[in-house]
Amino acid sequence: MDLNSDLAEGFGRWELSDDEALLRIVTSANVACGFHAGDATVIRAAVEQAAKQGVVVGAQVSYRDLAGFGRRFIDVPPRELANDVIYQIGALAGFARIAGTEVAYVKPHGALYNAIVHHAEQAAAVVEAVRAYDPSLAVLGLPGSQWLEQAERAGLRVFREAFADRAYTPDGTLVSRREPGAVLHDPELIAQRCLRLAAGEPIEAVDGSQIRVDADSICVHGDSPGAVAIAQAVRDQLVAGGVQLQPFAARGL
Amino acid sequence: MDLNSDLAEGFGRWELSDDEALLRIVTSANVACGFHAGDATVIRAAVEQAAKQGVVVGAQVSYRDLAGFGRRFIDVPPRELANDVIYQIGALAGFARIAGTEVAYVKPHGALYNAIVHHAEQAAAVVEAVRAYDPSLAVLGLPGSQWLEQAERAGLRVFREAFADRAYTPDGTLVSRREPGAVLHDPELIAQRCLRLAAGEPIEAVDGSQIRVDADSICVHGDSPGAVAIAQAVRDQLVAGGVQLQPFAARGL
Amino acid sequence: MDLNSDLAEGFGRWELSDDEALLRIVTSANVACGFHAGDATVIRAAVEQAAKQGVVVGAQVSYRDLAGFGRRFIDVPPRELANDVIYQIGALAGFARIAGTEVAYVKPHGALYNAIVHHAEQAAAVVEAVRAYDPSLAVLGLPGSQWLEQAERAGLRVFREAFADRAYTPDGTLVSRREPGAVLHDPELIAQRCLRLAAGEPIEAVDGSQIRVDADSICVHGDSPGAVAIAQAVRDQLVAGGVQLQPFAARGL
Amino acid sequence: MDLNSDLAEGFGRWELSDDEALLRIVTSANVACGFHAGDATVIRAAVEQAAKQGVVVGAQVSYRDLAGFGRRFIDVPPRELANDVIYQIGALAGFARIAGTEVAYVKPHGALYNAIVHHAEQAAAVVEAVRAYDPSLAVLGLPGSQWLEQAERAGLRVFREAFADRAYTPDGTLVSRREPGAVLHDPELIAQRCLRLAAGEPIEAVDGSQIRVDADSICVHGDSPGAVAIAQAVRDQLVAGGVQLQPFAARGL
Repeated sequence: MDLNSDLAEGFGRWELSDDEALLRIVTSANVACGFHAGDATVIRAAVEQAAKQGVVVGAQVSYRDLAGFGRRFIDVPPRELANDVIYQIGALAGFARIAGTEVAYVKPHGALYNAIVHHAEQAAAVVEAVRAYDPSLAVLGLPGSQWLEQAERAGLRVFREAFADRAYTPDGTLVSRREPGAVLHDPELIAQRCLRLAAGEPIEAVDGSQIRVDADSICVHGDSPGAVAIAQAVRDQLVAGGVQLQPFAARGL
Repeated sequence: MDLNSDLAEGFGRWELSDDEALLRIVTSANVACGFHAGDATVIRAAVEQAAKQGVVVGAQVSYRDLAGFGRRFIDVPPRELANDVIYQIGALAGFARIAGTEVAYVKPHGALYNAIVHHAEQAAAVVEAVRAYDPSLAVLGLPGSQWLEQAERAGLRVFREAFADRAYTPDGTLVSRREPGAVLHDPELIAQRCLRLAAGEPIEAVDGSQIRVDADSICVHGDSPGAVAIAQAVRDQLVAGGVQLQPFAARGL
Repeated sequence: MDLNSDLAEGFGRWELSDDEALLRIVTSANVACGFHAGDATVIRAAVEQAAKQGVVVGAQVSYRDLAGFGRRFIDVPPRELANDVIYQIGALAGFARIAGTEVAYVKPHGALYNAIVHHAEQAAAVVEAVRAYDPSLAVLGLPGSQWLEQAERAGLRVFREAFADRAYTPDGTLVSRREPGAVLHDPELIAQRCLRLAAGEPIEAVDGSQIRVDADSICVHGDSPGAVAIAQAVRDQLVAGGVQLQPFAARGL
Repeated sequence: MDLNSDLAEGFGRWELSDDEALLRIVTSANVACGFHAGDATVIRAAVEQAAKQGVVVGAQVSYRDLAGFGRRFIDVPPRELANDVIYQIGALAGFARIAGTEVAYVKPHGALYNAIVHHAEQAAAVVEAVRAYDPSLAVLGLPGSQWLEQAERAGLRVFREAFADRAYTPDGTLVSRREPGAVLHDPELIAQRCLRLAAGEPIEAVDGSQIRVDADSICVHGDSPGAVAIAQAVRDQLVAGGVQLQPFAARGL
């Protein structure tokens, strides 16, 4: 099982993710590329630390929207979106290169992540961008999304992620954040769910039924002290439970 | 002799350089990387056309300053400046990669170009960025500048440029734009100076004396119809005079 | 009848609208406020020239999107959108103040203009912003839009615009730009339609039927030499036809 | 005596200043205007809270530099700088208007603050911007700076500030941040210095000598929990010492 988290989400004077703490927890780092967060200095530090600790680097590509932190859908024409994605992967790849590592996968951020669950044209644009840049890149996303389905059809290596702290519907989709109970807060409970998930066992859906969530990676957060504590609890529980943590997209594996 | 010009200097709705016309004239394209101009779509188009026509691609790196078009000195701490340069080269390299070419050289833009003639710390930062990213990259700049001198000491391949439409002092430096006669406007005169320059013959300085300007590349402009006409006249004159035009930084040469 | 056009749509090094030419043609200037175009220097020049020539100044508010020129829908939460609109009106008002004029009306730009034809929440946000800033401001927009309907209900002074160079459906709505014949190009034809429109006479819809378009202002463009020529033809035809040109939102009227 | 602090220094997802805590401490709020920090929503919240608590609102104008948080000198041509300042004051004034208050003073931020201590042309540009926008605005700055001297000559109301947590040279200027001991950290010591300063008594310079610092306002910080604690200690000490806290630039006073 892989653990992934968002890194380099500061910008200039502003800090957000606790990159140092996260890099001791996760096996894959979704590094912001400058469009929703991440100036060049923040990115470089995150990539160099990731490389040093053997954490695999992925490109967390986004709409161009610093003011909205990439969390607002933008109706970017697909061709422009594809180019924006290529720009971001390339920029990140420069830092990976000088850190002696490489960009191994792409995980869209925020509103783009959500949009390309259903938005076929934008999903196609991101897939096309990845394929054009490097068809050996892996992609990470939501099972059943346009993003993963189109990526698979395009011959890309596709990996599915689950969310440590989110409730699931009986259908195995995420409970909307607008619904009560959508986000879990108890570190112990979250960690145990992740262990069952990693072991291929069913977890409890929001209605109490048991569902199976297939995932290659579990997403944990690091944008608050509480979030880091949960991420640490997840890691500890997985390790204690005998789960082997390893990056899904390691190039050499 | 090489002819270089700035390309991809539009941004979104705004156009500036006539890239199509320039790519029929020059042998090296200084492609904007998004910090002073050049959105991803403009960059991609310029790089793909350059690749198609055998024009070598260079990174025209800049301060982060869209509002000022990179023409205002910014006192960026050297470490941040180096990272901004790496970010820009990487972003451009992504488009070079998908166009089947590569970034072959770096030429700083505008106020950064001017600053690192004398500003040792910023010059060192840009040199370090290039060296860290890829020590086989060539660099283009003003003879005698900190930028070229430090690049040479760092083991980079250094190339000198002359300006087709600028007057020179008896010392071989550029006449400041604030002085009368600093910029030449007569296409015929400019083209003939470039031919002498390419032939290794002396040209006339602003005081009437004869000086020798050693250059590996001549910079022409393309941000107005008149500028393109001058660039075309320079090329025509050089070709008519038997000068072989070829990129200074072609990787295979 | 009023003639309005978009001004101050350059940014830094980039020029777009021919403000000088337009200010000799129109009676109302939709001045960009910096979010899709318009740096402070461009805005100031446009406002000062407008004031000098007695052209009324309106705020052309937009999504925050320089790279997309405000032409891409952004799903901004209504509260943030309202605040962005207030920010833009205020910024423009500063320049109006020093030019001895004032912001007299608000006309949303691009994708925001299109969105709030139907998007009730964003329309409400813009209306609320205008009302909060100054309930005596006029608003300009498409007849039948959420924007105008909600503005009217909120007690704002509402004005309807027609488009000189656009074809209309038999229902009196604009033919989509994706349809053939959506945009008219013949200056003479356009000018004659505008004259009939100003005289309250029917004009020909795209299917040949006659429709009546009620408008307080006609929008002309100025982002190309051809556009300016059309705008001039419209003005000349209206003047020749005895139509009195006057701003719809003049404060003193 | 007045206490001033920087507010609204977040941007989008990023938070920085603890505005709520600061507004219970200070009498004047230097509100960021969007060029170095402060999106419209952050600004509005700060201005509305300030108005509610009777804290006077000032415009904390900056170079346009989100990535550098306005801390990097930019060689902006004076005319453009003046326009950028007007833009920022106007934008802030919109929020002041809807909050039932007004912009009462201008205090430049960061690198601009430092530049116009000596940079006569940029100082003149900011002075001219304030004068053009509203000659009844007060200005706040460093005693002896070009900024205050030129503002005074231009007829503006000029106020001097001291820094609670900074060491002073025997000449009464600030010890450079690069020198050891430039920044004080002991809340108790800082608070006592502020009390002496408010009482018109000499304080100890970095070399142990006694100097007199004349100030109309003391600047406290709020960008960390420790900073807020110091600000609170300063306020408590001043109140306990019988100093009457009141805004220097209250319009009605």
